[in-house]
Amino acid sequence: MRERLHKLVHSSQWEFWIVVIIVINAITLGLETSTTVMNAVGPVLHVVDKVILAIFVAELLLRIVADGRSFFKGAWNIFDFIIVAIALVPASGPFTVLRALRILRVLRLISVVPSLRRVIGGLMAALPGMGSIVVLMILVFYVFSVMATKLYGVTFPEWFGTIPESLYTLFQIMTLESWSMGIVRPVMEVHPWSWLFFMPFILCTAFTVLNLFIGIMVSAMQEEHEHTADEDRKAIQTETEHILTEVRALRQEVAALKDHLKAT
Amino acid sequence: MRERLHKLVHSSQWEFWIVVIIVINAITLGLETSTTVMNAVGPVLHVVDKVILAIFVAELLLRIVADGRSFFKGAWNIFDFIIVAIALVPASGPFTVLRALRILRVLRLISVVPSLRRVIGGLMAALPGMGSIVVLMILVFYVFSVMATKLYGVTFPEWFGTIPESLYTLFQIMTLESWSMGIVRPVMEVHPWSWLFFMPFILCTAFTVLNLFIGIMVSAMQEEHEHTADEDRKAIQTETEHILTEVRALRQEVAALKDHLKAT
Amino acid sequence: MRERLHKLVHSSQWEFWIVVIIVINAITLGLETSTTVMNAVGPVLHVVDKVILAIFVAELLLRIVADGRSFFKGAWNIFDFIIVAIALVPASGPFTVLRALRILRVLRLISVVPSLRRVIGGLMAALPGMGSIVVLMILVFYVFSVMATKLYGVTFPEWFGTIPESLYTLFQIMTLESWSMGIVRPVMEVHPWSWLFFMPFILCTAFTVLNLFIGIMVSAMQEEHEHTADEDRKAIQTETEHILTEVRALRQEVAALKDHLKAT
Amino acid sequence: MRERLHKLVHSSQWEFWIVVIIVINAITLGLETSTTVMNAVGPVLHVVDKVILAIFVAELLLRIVADGRSFFKGAWNIFDFIIVAIALVPASGPFTVLRALRILRVLRLISVVPSLRRVIGGLMAALPGMGSIVVLMILVFYVFSVMATKLYGVTFPEWFGTIPESLYTLFQIMTLESWSMGIVRPVMEVHPWSWLFFMPFILCTAFTVLNLFIGIMVSAMQEEHEHTADEDRKAIQTETEHILTEVRALRQEVAALKDHLKAT
Repeated sequence: MRERLHKLVHSSQWEFWIVVIIVINAITLGLETSTTVMNAVGPVLHVVDKVILAIFVAELLLRIVADGRSFFKGAWNIFDFIIVAIALVPASGPFTVLRALRILRVLRLISVVPSLRRVIGGLMAALPGMGSIVVLMILVFYVFSVMATKLYGVTFPEWFGTIPESLYTLFQIMTLESWSMGIVRPVMEVHPWSWLFFMPFILCTAFTVLNLFIGIMVSAMQEEHEHTADEDRKAIQTETEHILTEVRALRQEVAALKDHLKAT
Repeated sequence: MRERLHKLVHSSQWEFWIVVIIVINAITLGLETSTTVMNAVGPVLHVVDKVILAIFVAELLLRIVADGRSFFKGAWNIFDFIIVAIALVPASGPFTVLRALRILRVLRLISVVPSLRRVIGGLMAALPGMGSIVVLMILVFYVFSVMATKLYGVTFPEWFGTIPESLYTLFQIMTLESWSMGIVRPVMEVHPWSWLFFMPFILCTAFTVLNLFIGIMVSAMQEEHEHTADEDRKAIQTETEHILTEVRALRQEVAALKDHLKAT
Repeated sequence: MRERLHKLVHSSQWEFWIVVIIVINAITLGLETSTTVMNAVGPVLHVVDKVILAIFVAELLLRIVADGRSFFKGAWNIFDFIIVAIALVPASGPFTVLRALRILRVLRLISVVPSLRRVIGGLMAALPGMGSIVVLMILVFYVFSVMATKLYGVTFPEWFGTIPESLYTLFQIMTLESWSMGIVRPVMEVHPWSWLFFMPFILCTAFTVLNLFIGIMVSAMQEEHEHTADEDRKAIQTETEHILTEVRALRQEVAALKDHLKAT
Repeated sequence: MRERLHKLVHSSQWEFWIVVIIVINAITLGLETSTTVMNAVGPVLHVVDKVILAIFVAELLLRIVADGRSFFKGAWNIFDFIIVAIALVPASGPFTVLRALRILRVLRLISVVPSLRRVIGGLMAALPGMGSIVVLMILVFYVFSVMATKLYGVTFPEWFGTIPESLYTLFQIMTLESWSMGIVRPVMEVHPWSWLFFMPFILCTAFTVLNLFIGIMVSAMQEEHEHTADEDRKAIQTETEHILTEVRALRQEVAALKDHLKAT
């Protein structure tokens, strides 16, 4: 019976209906943001939302029953589990912000539609190779934010008062948003040499991001390249095997000739 | 007779004159924006514009007659048809904005000049492979805009009042324009933890756009690569065929030798 | 004698001294911008400048004599000629701006130092292949600027009053500088649907620039790739030639064997 | 004994403890920026900092003893030496800024952790090939900043008063930060033709940076490519060697046959 349940839960028809429900939920959650719509059909939307949540919980339970222990080994299953779990936490008191997170349910589309799952898988695959550069980036950010807090924390507390504030401001500077007119020019009026701090930072992070980018790119190309290179090698192998068969046949013929001669 | 018409309409001389007329039209439509010029020779420009429109309509009709039903199968033909049709809609009342769209006629240059048509064709060819990432992007934008509307819609109605407004503001943030000094810093003064919303959004979209870019790039390179790989394979094939002919000739000689020996 | 002059003018020692003079000139022209320095040693700097200009003129004349007519066939020679000619125009009346152009002489470093000349050559080599995309870009800019002038010229004359002003504003929007907070949000307050004009423009130009970039990139890689592919082919050819020599030697031996047998 | 010291200093256990100490130091230096923490446990942090500095000095001395003269040949050793030396300079009077530089000690993580060292090595390896483009960039910046100072120094002394100020402003313009709304539009109100100066500058530097980028990218790919190409060649070589052995064996057999015939 569990096998039949497993088959049902992973059938393409089942997935189609889940996609339909997710899309309906996306629309109702979007409509909830409009006060006009809420005044008109608010209670209906709430009922629809609760029904859909019930369907999601039921579907998840069915999948857990169907897959057994192996359910929690799939990263996407855990993803689905967390998203549904968020919706079940009573959104009141300090958790009112969780009401806004209900829309994350729409991200279940990613785990249901195979082509989207593949795209995310591709993005994730690029990450581990970039570990060292990300560590380096964090290091650079930490070192510069401690320095910025020490150097400019007293004169510009709004931007560099604490380490988290410095981290945020440096992130803004890295994205080049208002870095000069908004931040560095005012700072330079008090600390005329501060460009010696900010310009190396911009060049450093730009160069590191560039390398992160090139790293991802090269690994994407390499994969592609290896694929065609494998095909090339196979093509060459077929060619050379042709020659080898010919040469071996020739050897056999020469050997036969030799035998023939020896016999005479 | 239809064949002769077809030949005429697709001759390079015909295309040359169409290009000339389009360029003249581009200039007159540009001049129309200047009030000084309009005061001096306004009526002349209007007459020229009407004559050129008549030529365009005539040319389109000739091409429809020449190509018959197959006319509406070409994407570029439909493009030309729509552009001329826009010019024929009476631009009055709610349609005054269509007067500004008359300049789109100049885009007909793209459908007439082959090298431009090829460039656009190349751009278009890159699109379908990117379908999944574009869907992912839309999903990310929708989820974040619903959340932004819920979280900041009340306190910052100008930026996040409705879902379309949130979508626009998030697009602005994605392009990094004034994202911090203009939007996130003011928001953070009311909601101190809102960087937990905006910074993941920036990193998410930057990463997705990066992947869109890498996807287009890799597919462009792959095409290029496959081309040279094909050439390589052909070169190797020629080489190995040389060897094969030699070895086969040798086999024949050995066979001849065998026959000669058997005969004696 | 002309041959000896040619040799002298193209000797590495000559080039070295020209580089030294250019660097000195770069420094003196830089110093001229400081009023303190000008008050102290202004006349000296002017004399140095005039002497160096005289040297440049003399050097150019020598090179013209040495190379004869072929002088004006070299793009870099014409570049040098124009730069020196600019310095000779009397910088007074409407031409005072030309005084600022004297610093362009420093660009002669590019034409003298071979490695810089090669870099510029590389940049230039990438241009012709990009012709179609540049034409497309100009077309897009012209069409959008005519539309912007028609649609927003009356309400925002400062930004979209004339076609050149619209071109400038659209260029700014393409670079994403203050596009939303500075331009589009104010425009949207008067024309609520104007995002339908600006967002497609941003996506259009971003996509075209991206393709320009990919085009340059792919052609750079292709060149590189072809180089290694050529090496590969040569390596394979050496290998197969080895085999061919062996097989041919074998054929000769078999032929010799045949002759021997026939003789007996 | 020196050999044992060398072994100890380069053992993985030693490196592990150095990493631990660096991380502790990073945390204490971060905590020092908070006045609340400093009021509570300030003296403790100072003691910890001094102890860690003593450990660093001792470790450096041990490594100098262990490696002898060859110590100062390693770039990373010199890097460590400078960082520790900075911490030893008494940070008082004009050197108070050096107190902020103490956090640079955390960068020692890079020289200790091999994977980080490799990333930096990779970044550095990309630099020398880019020498010419960097020189070109400096040249372009110098020429444009002299011109800007001459042309706009009097009317906009805040932005273009001196060459360093012009360099800074041009760097800001290159990063596209507020280039139009912040700088060029105000300048254009006084000098209407100044877009003829700034737009070529933006296009020039954008194009040069693009080429710098492509250069780094192509060289990264080329390395990757050469690696796989080498593998390809080896694979082909193995194939052809197979054939060669076969053909040579055949030749020997034919030769044996010949001998046999001659003998009879």
